[in-house]
Amino acid sequence: MGEITEVSSNKCFGGWQKIYSHESDVLKCKMNFGVYLPPQVEHDSIPVIYWLSGLTCTESNFITKAGAQNYAAEYGIMLVTPDTSPRGINIPGEDDSWDFGSGAGFYVNATEEPWSTNYKMFSYITDELPALINKKFPAIPDKQSIMGHSMGGHGALICALKYPGKYKSVSAFAPICNPINSNWGQKAFTGYLGGKKGDEHWKKWDATELIQVYNGPFLDILIHQGEKDSFIEELRTENLYEIAKNTPSINLILRLLPDYDHSYFFIATFIEEHIKHHVKYLKS
Amino acid sequence: MGEITEVSSNKCFGGWQKIYSHESDVLKCKMNFGVYLPPQVEHDSIPVIYWLSGLTCTESNFITKAGAQNYAAEYGIMLVTPDTSPRGINIPGEDDSWDFGSGAGFYVNATEEPWSTNYKMFSYITDELPALINKKFPAIPDKQSIMGHSMGGHGALICALKYPGKYKSVSAFAPICNPINSNWGQKAFTGYLGGKKGDEHWKKWDATELIQVYNGPFLDILIHQGEKDSFIEELRTENLYEIAKNTPSINLILRLLPDYDHSYFFIATFIEEHIKHHVKYLKS
Repeated sequence: MGEITEVSSNKCFGGWQKIYSHESDVLKCKMNFGVYLPPQVEHDSIPVIYWLSGLTCTESNFITKAGAQNYAAEYGIMLVTPDTSPRGINIPGEDDSWDFGSGAGFYVNATEEPWSTNYKMFSYITDELPALINKKFPAIPDKQSIMGHSMGGHGALICALKYPGKYKSVSAFAPICNPINSNWGQKAFTGYLGGKKGDEHWKKWDATELIQVYNGPFLDILIHQGEKDSFIEELRTENLYEIAKNTPSINLILRLLPDYDHSYFFIATFIEEHIKHHVKYLKS
Repeated sequence: MGEITEVSSNKCFGGWQKIYSHESDVLKCKMNFGVYLPPQVEHDSIPVIYWLSGLTCTESNFITKAGAQNYAAEYGIMLVTPDTSPRGINIPGEDDSWDFGSGAGFYVNATEEPWSTNYKMFSYITDELPALINKKFPAIPDKQSIMGHSMGGHGALICALKYPGKYKSVSAFAPICNPINSNWGQKAFTGYLGGKKGDEHWKKWDATELIQVYNGPFLDILIHQGEKDSFIEELRTENLYEIAKNTPSINLILRLLPDYDHSYFFIATFIEEHIKHHVKYLKS
């Protein structure tokens, strides 16, 4: 397992907001990730929440805009914020679209050339990165949860649904809930997975499909969705909600917020509720 | 007085984070400013805190990174965040330096050509902008305070010291306390004011000089300074502190924070304390 190199370090809410880089074996490129270490790490091993960002983001957006360190410090939680795709691997066209390629890994394991060599974000997020975090930082390996925004909300949901029991809880802001029925999802799945809408292999990366075959421990899902979200047609929250209502072992709390949009102003407003949601399971 | 045009509007902590543009009579160019309207404006007129940003910033840095809306909503305070200089006025060289010209107005009224036509940030901040805010928003005109960061900390201090009684309280993060004895300040004052270090007319824009001739109502100044601030040689906090200790009508609380730097991570950590400092005077 590769070494990690500190890129930046800032004292923040009594702890440290760090960014590191490392050579990813899975993605076959250098990747950055953020780690917020609250003051409690000086004395204890602590639970971890992974945050997955949305389209166009890097590891830095959440770190600078969400205000989450305040609550991570209060509750003694480590926050890990990976980048959203492999970077700089020189696939023709990788930087041409804001919703595909760089900054848009979609948290799947690509099977189509030329993406399949590097675009294995699912394995990176669920296996390689947690192993690295658990080795290098005072994390409690079996106390981890996951959350995200938009494309990263989709990512958080599929990580929790595909890996029953790995995450104690899951939450999302404005997640893409049913990518096989959204333009963003269809573009990404066509490119990374090949085939077309209706193919069985797409359903293995779609939260609304995965929840129907979920077979694991009780999973408490918290979703906040702004009603003035200009991307709401891409998200299909209602599809996930209708199915979740009748799914055993799943509790989906959907909070619809009048006037809120898709921005980090929305995330900052409700991030404390999400961290409290996870703390309920991570500290029990 | 010109009209204002809404540039953006985001629901945030139960209120609205807005950005507006307007044609400034004083600066003779179009300017953007941010206004956070907490939920209390639906029913009441409320106090205002002005935030002045540092070198290279626009009206957006504080809005996206400081997390202040949370506390403005809690305490019922309007936050006004102007830009840091005139923009796009086509003075040769205006964009050549990160510490002079665009993004670096230094909150003085320039007297040297070619800057003196537009670079009147002191009058803009203390006269034109408050008049506009008081006309267009439910602000209580005699309940206003001011705070800022770095160059904007210098700005907040000189606004409060040059205009006794206009601001109920003042605070700053890592302010340039004695610009006539800093490289940043000397470059800016030479360009905007003409002359050289030691000239009497420079002293009218320097907090450490102004505090010695302050003659106004009791003024409570809160300053947070990180001990790992990489710009600490530019700030000269100790010069202001030593003089303030023996100045009647001034109370300067200086908080030195081990490990904190010059970044917005530092600001986000202590912004609640600053807002509480102002609330003490704005709500009494």
